[in-house]
Amino acid sequence: MLPEPLRRVIQLLSRLPGVGEKTAQRFALRLMTDPNLAVELGAELSHLKERLRPCEHCGNLAEVDENDRALCTICSDTRRDAHLLCIVARVQDLLAIERSGAMRGRYFVLGRLLSPLDGVGPDELPLAALAQRLDTDGTTEVILATPPSVDGEATALLLARELRDRGLSVSRIASGVPHGGDLEFADQITLGRAIDGRRQVVD
Amino acid sequence: MLPEPLRRVIQLLSRLPGVGEKTAQRFALRLMTDPNLAVELGAELSHLKERLRPCEHCGNLAEVDENDRALCTICSDTRRDAHLLCIVARVQDLLAIERSGAMRGRYFVLGRLLSPLDGVGPDELPLAALAQRLDTDGTTEVILATPPSVDGEATALLLARELRDRGLSVSRIASGVPHGGDLEFADQITLGRAIDGRRQVVD
Repeated sequence: MLPEPLRRVIQLLSRLPGVGEKTAQRFALRLMTDPNLAVELGAELSHLKERLRPCEHCGNLAEVDENDRALCTICSDTRRDAHLLCIVARVQDLLAIERSGAMRGRYFVLGRLLSPLDGVGPDELPLAALAQRLDTDGTTEVILATPPSVDGEATALLLARELRDRGLSVSRIASGVPHGGDLEFADQITLGRAIDGRRQVVD
Repeated sequence: MLPEPLRRVIQLLSRLPGVGEKTAQRFALRLMTDPNLAVELGAELSHLKERLRPCEHCGNLAEVDENDRALCTICSDTRRDAHLLCIVARVQDLLAIERSGAMRGRYFVLGRLLSPLDGVGPDELPLAALAQRLDTDGTTEVILATPPSVDGEATALLLARELRDRGLSVSRIASGVPHGGDLEFADQITLGRAIDGRRQVVD
């Protein structure tokens, strides 16, 4: 019923996260009624692959420079504390931590987590690249910010062992009841963690 | 914090209906992790404007053919009843009616509705194009399928007068409690219309 080029656009748009065929059709019709948006977006997307690449140092998204090298804005910022390194699973997690403004050091993006069920073992983690980053930066402290899930905890445990053997100070982000959260509706694992991770109140 | 090309993509994606900056960022990161999707979508969108155009006869979306003409699949389908014409406000409405399978005739897409508050008067409606369509098709019956809103009703009233003067049979789609709807939760205008539009039960 729909013309073929539009059907292809709808099929591609429905591969975006959380977008079904109906939403994709709504997007496509919007793109039809605003052809400039379609043209601009088309041009930007066509060049995205050439213009962006994972940062050579940390794996964050980085713009490719004139020397065909990719260094992200965080790694090229000299005001950042090079001795402090935060290890995250995904670029999205790095962006979330940056938004919090609580991290003054640098990052390392693993890109994946240990997942025995999916066949991801320690050999699949970028441990060699991480070791190189630690050496060049002269890192002294590491924050493990993998998610508080089964895979995230397993990965944090593996990294903690490796990093402690190098004589580094290693910490794990706190897990507990979120800010503004209701204890009544918190699940039992979260509450258990909140109790286990309790801190002395000083006055 | 994000590289400039990605920021531009996010800004463009957030112009899609119902997409805020956070969703746009999620889409953009998905497009980064699946570069083929970005490239394919980019190519399709770049050419959408050249490949698609409103159908010359009805205003539906149509693929441009080798002679640089645009005729939609419905208008080029000779099995359609040319004597029956359904007038809709938008292409989306045409697609919704087609999905219902209840319409065997042809369509005419107005593209806009009468809207005195927005300065859209009768002169802004494509009445000349509609008259031409009626003449070439030899239309005898018209269904007014503009939405049951203030603007939609005003437009239907205007069209009904124009079309009746031409000696055509003119009807308006029914308005009432939707299929599966609960009378308890129907608003009073809908219920009023359901009562007004009641039909004799025959046995």
